[in-house]
Amino acid sequence: MSAKIPVGVLAATGSVGQRFVQLLENHPWFEVAAVTGSARSVGRRYGEAVNWIIPGAPPAGVADLTVLPNDPAALDVPIVFSALPKEPALDIEPAFAAAGVAVLTNASAFRMTPDVPLLIPEVNAEHAALIKTQQANRGWSGFIVANANCSTTSVILPLKILQQAFGLETVIMVTMQAISGAGYPGVSAMDIMDNIIPHIGGEDRKLETEPTKLLGALAGDVIAPAPLRISAQANRVPVIDGHLVSASVGLGRRAAAAEAIDAFCSWAPPAICSELPSSPRLPLVYRPEPDRPQPRRDRDAGNGNAWVVGKVRDCDVLDVRFLSIAHNTLRGAASGSILNAELLKLQGYL
Amino acid sequence: MSAKIPVGVLAATGSVGQRFVQLLENHPWFEVAAVTGSARSVGRRYGEAVNWIIPGAPPAGVADLTVLPNDPAALDVPIVFSALPKEPALDIEPAFAAAGVAVLTNASAFRMTPDVPLLIPEVNAEHAALIKTQQANRGWSGFIVANANCSTTSVILPLKILQQAFGLETVIMVTMQAISGAGYPGVSAMDIMDNIIPHIGGEDRKLETEPTKLLGALAGDVIAPAPLRISAQANRVPVIDGHLVSASVGLGRRAAAAEAIDAFCSWAPPAICSELPSSPRLPLVYRPEPDRPQPRRDRDAGNGNAWVVGKVRDCDVLDVRFLSIAHNTLRGAASGSILNAELLKLQGYL
Amino acid sequence: MSAKIPVGVLAATGSVGQRFVQLLENHPWFEVAAVTGSARSVGRRYGEAVNWIIPGAPPAGVADLTVLPNDPAALDVPIVFSALPKEPALDIEPAFAAAGVAVLTNASAFRMTPDVPLLIPEVNAEHAALIKTQQANRGWSGFIVANANCSTTSVILPLKILQQAFGLETVIMVTMQAISGAGYPGVSAMDIMDNIIPHIGGEDRKLETEPTKLLGALAGDVIAPAPLRISAQANRVPVIDGHLVSASVGLGRRAAAAEAIDAFCSWAPPAICSELPSSPRLPLVYRPEPDRPQPRRDRDAGNGNAWVVGKVRDCDVLDVRFLSIAHNTLRGAASGSILNAELLKLQGYL
Amino acid sequence: MSAKIPVGVLAATGSVGQRFVQLLENHPWFEVAAVTGSARSVGRRYGEAVNWIIPGAPPAGVADLTVLPNDPAALDVPIVFSALPKEPALDIEPAFAAAGVAVLTNASAFRMTPDVPLLIPEVNAEHAALIKTQQANRGWSGFIVANANCSTTSVILPLKILQQAFGLETVIMVTMQAISGAGYPGVSAMDIMDNIIPHIGGEDRKLETEPTKLLGALAGDVIAPAPLRISAQANRVPVIDGHLVSASVGLGRRAAAAEAIDAFCSWAPPAICSELPSSPRLPLVYRPEPDRPQPRRDRDAGNGNAWVVGKVRDCDVLDVRFLSIAHNTLRGAASGSILNAELLKLQGYL
Repeated sequence: MSAKIPVGVLAATGSVGQRFVQLLENHPWFEVAAVTGSARSVGRRYGEAVNWIIPGAPPAGVADLTVLPNDPAALDVPIVFSALPKEPALDIEPAFAAAGVAVLTNASAFRMTPDVPLLIPEVNAEHAALIKTQQANRGWSGFIVANANCSTTSVILPLKILQQAFGLETVIMVTMQAISGAGYPGVSAMDIMDNIIPHIGGEDRKLETEPTKLLGALAGDVIAPAPLRISAQANRVPVIDGHLVSASVGLGRRAAAAEAIDAFCSWAPPAICSELPSSPRLPLVYRPEPDRPQPRRDRDAGNGNAWVVGKVRDCDVLDVRFLSIAHNTLRGAASGSILNAELLKLQGYL
Repeated sequence: MSAKIPVGVLAATGSVGQRFVQLLENHPWFEVAAVTGSARSVGRRYGEAVNWIIPGAPPAGVADLTVLPNDPAALDVPIVFSALPKEPALDIEPAFAAAGVAVLTNASAFRMTPDVPLLIPEVNAEHAALIKTQQANRGWSGFIVANANCSTTSVILPLKILQQAFGLETVIMVTMQAISGAGYPGVSAMDIMDNIIPHIGGEDRKLETEPTKLLGALAGDVIAPAPLRISAQANRVPVIDGHLVSASVGLGRRAAAAEAIDAFCSWAPPAICSELPSSPRLPLVYRPEPDRPQPRRDRDAGNGNAWVVGKVRDCDVLDVRFLSIAHNTLRGAASGSILNAELLKLQGYL
Repeated sequence: MSAKIPVGVLAATGSVGQRFVQLLENHPWFEVAAVTGSARSVGRRYGEAVNWIIPGAPPAGVADLTVLPNDPAALDVPIVFSALPKEPALDIEPAFAAAGVAVLTNASAFRMTPDVPLLIPEVNAEHAALIKTQQANRGWSGFIVANANCSTTSVILPLKILQQAFGLETVIMVTMQAISGAGYPGVSAMDIMDNIIPHIGGEDRKLETEPTKLLGALAGDVIAPAPLRISAQANRVPVIDGHLVSASVGLGRRAAAAEAIDAFCSWAPPAICSELPSSPRLPLVYRPEPDRPQPRRDRDAGNGNAWVVGKVRDCDVLDVRFLSIAHNTLRGAASGSILNAELLKLQGYL
Repeated sequence: MSAKIPVGVLAATGSVGQRFVQLLENHPWFEVAAVTGSARSVGRRYGEAVNWIIPGAPPAGVADLTVLPNDPAALDVPIVFSALPKEPALDIEPAFAAAGVAVLTNASAFRMTPDVPLLIPEVNAEHAALIKTQQANRGWSGFIVANANCSTTSVILPLKILQQAFGLETVIMVTMQAISGAGYPGVSAMDIMDNIIPHIGGEDRKLETEPTKLLGALAGDVIAPAPLRISAQANRVPVIDGHLVSASVGLGRRAAAAEAIDAFCSWAPPAICSELPSSPRLPLVYRPEPDRPQPRRDRDAGNGNAWVVGKVRDCDVLDVRFLSIAHNTLRGAASGSILNAELLKLQGYL
């Protein structure tokens, strides 16, 4: 038996669950010791229950696990990564937290709940302190920590850097989002081939609210939302992975594109980030070429965990505009939760 | 021999030239009587010189024409449609105009030239009056009239309607443009499959300047540009035809999305438009569904000559936002020039 | 009221049903007077019940019809076009036939049933005579006539021509089939983007059996299957419409590619075909270019009702090889049934 | 300076050249010490001369090299990997070989030349012995060794295994080939989106001849070609990487699909292959699922160096049919040459 921390993956047979399983193979600190699934899968061998849609095949060790129900009593692990859909997450995640388990969730169920940290290490590591408030409020020995929606994630780090450097007041953003963000089977090929769908249910609202929490200030035991006005238009495009966001921003003080580029290039992540095993050495990559970032050529930067920013230019209407990309199923989903777990372990919450 | 007006197509073997040839088949007023091409094609039968990339095959009548050089002396037609690239257009189009030919051009060479009308019948039919200024200035018996860039075209009619109804001050727009806009061979499949290219050379500038002329006011013999501030980000997406534009606008007076929808739905084209043979009955189609317009499902509205507008919503940063689409190789290119010719004929310039 | 024959469309809200509705708009002989749907849709206005996935919008006349149940008593029409899935077709189609209705079906349920004609006008118009056997066998006043599977259809006419000219013994074929063949939502974009799926459930078997019936000889009141050995591999490819088939054939007597080309080019459809309103003037188009047929450029030949054949070459293993394409949702589905109805009317069965 | 063997890459700025550079980064035996390019690039820093189309960026060490001309005198390396196009390869590769350099080429120029080994370690390692004949024939101190065309490569290992097990007489194959096989810019997006191009210049001929040499027997100092009749139809499909081949084969002795599966699963590579650093542990992966192999999910098997075979079934016309895939720019191009170099080093030719 290894000395790694055993972890569970909730809803491990779905597309995000598969990513958790894949990414945790050979993780230096964590080891998948339990997987859960729906009634249809419970009791079956994971390797048989899963319709593995990622290239290759499920890791041998996990393939042999028996799929368990989403019941804290059935799992004996201190940490679970949750790939549950929103509705079941509303009941199941609190049950795990109440049972003493640390729940790192990719679900949207509790993202905007005041005492649940919406956490991205490079952006708001200090928000982890809400865990204590959450445990006090609810009498839980475990807790829930969420990561942001994949589209919000794709643009949040450059927004944070601009906020720190110049203040941030308004954002108009248009996303071009990959099909993998819709899960599996997700988007019908009949809808997206040779086409764009200018609508992703609930996504505009997430893009317009999650940043106010992520960029908000921890004040005592609450987050004071950042006073931002955001207008977002989310589009689904025929790209497999990688959400591209085109943003124009109004700043607290006038700044030219050149200053914004300086801010991006001189930014360094919080020191603690360099100790996270999954953190890229360079979380934000600035590309000066006029035709970058591009989803296929930039989504894998930093092993799928970095942001790539480019086309930073003066905006004739607001102040500055730019494009940002992140890998939606890695940084924007499974890797995001894993990085949060790594952060919380270093911060002593695990 | 028919009683139709014989017309020429300049650069008829290229992708836009092929569209001219295709669209003019069975046109009630015009008939292709001459085609020109580069030195490589001159003297060959059109049907052999052309690499026909449109579905089907070239119309029989045109296939048998001999390709001529781009020389006014070689063609005996009163009207030419020009699919020339910008550089050769700079010399060839004035030569035709000087020789008494009406040049309806899709090239960018003279779009922003003060005495050349940049014309879209539904938007600024009155700008055709510049033709007289142009002829006086230059001593030409013919003239040049340009249509706008395909991406500008895709959003200009809704902008015009908002300008008329509320005044228009600022526009932030992000385009998602089809590959056919780059001609043939145009975009490499290696660049665009499973990808987006956030750069189209010179396109942002065209999107930021052409609307100021199109929406400008004819004052005596000049166009006073509309006092607009525009910020545009053009993106190439893996879609074959149809440019989708996401726009947020600041208006002259505050208006809610509902008022903008009223403006779109109650707008009627200038009376003369209903007499143009190629004009759709309904040039602007408003779709109330949350997931429209879409390139593949809406680009052919009005036979590829209509605009489809949707997702008209309040914008938290500026005033109103919406999406607009038009078919880039039809309305935004060849059909645009043909509609201009139809308009000029009715106005008496032809 | 028009003098056209009122017809019904069974399962009119699905993707094939929508095609029937679209194609029958303005049909010279038939008019959609009734549409049926599942329990979820019954009683609703068709225009509201349907999620119209074809470009544009449903025809106004049909949009206002109320969706009826799949019950012969509920419809007062002499003809129905069936877009039912196989399972419900097994019960519903015989019920309509028993009630005196002519059922033109695109379903696979009865294709291989001995007394049901599997009919394609250009291929085996004389098989319609089975209708009388069918009515006698079953005591029906109506009847069922099926059209072939879309992939079989895409290659059957060139096979028929080769059979007539040289005899046909063996066929090895590999298909590259469009996603629209799987209906809606059908194929997941996650499965087919940047990918090929070398498996379509049951398709290989259909490709290996349906041609033996279609090319079989009517002998008294049965079809003697053609003595063919067929090996088929069906693949799903990222193409929207148009099934491309690559075939190598062994002939009854040796023939070179040049002879096969002669056979294709000199073939003329049965005389009756020229009287069918939906029949293309040229049902088989031979393209001599080395890079044709192509799905996007050839699927719409003959208004989507023609076969396009090319790359006819000697085969070093069998005798001759070629490629063939037809539009799978037009000729291979809805138009196929409509052409059958047109044929049966001329033949006096309707 | 490292103890690795310094190597050169000819035509290093092209798409195959870039792959060589990428794959040789961190190679245990070889190190890129020189890069060549066309006149346009010579004298420039590689990092500036190259338009890097692979995700990420060129390795730092190579980016700083100065691009050299294709002249043996300009390079001081014992080995070059050639990504030259066929025409320049005809002169340049012999010049290097004459100058004492080992040329591992991906070009087609000398593949079918009798005294040039057409080499794939798992298939015909013993053909390397032709090197001595070549040097004797031509008086060279260096030599040329070619790898096969990418499409031939994609199917050759299963053909070899069947040949060994049962004898092999006839092959009918249809390929579905990725766009990356055409280089950069290569295929126009206007040609391949929502389409298939059933023609790749010269490819059918390569598929019909190269296997006869690869599967031929070394007899003294010549290769006796395998007595195969092959019929190949190559198609370009909208897939980025990975050539899928559908094959039906006639065997020397009748064998059922189950026996062929046994042959594939019990096959072991020659012992020397396990010592090649780039060789996958399992060069041939058999997938039993009915929908495999698939380009996107199987092309990266064995780090892009393995074959994935599936759908092994009885063929009603010939004997057995199956599908095979390999990564065309890795195993079928750059990695193929590198594996050949590794083999030749172990065999003592380097």
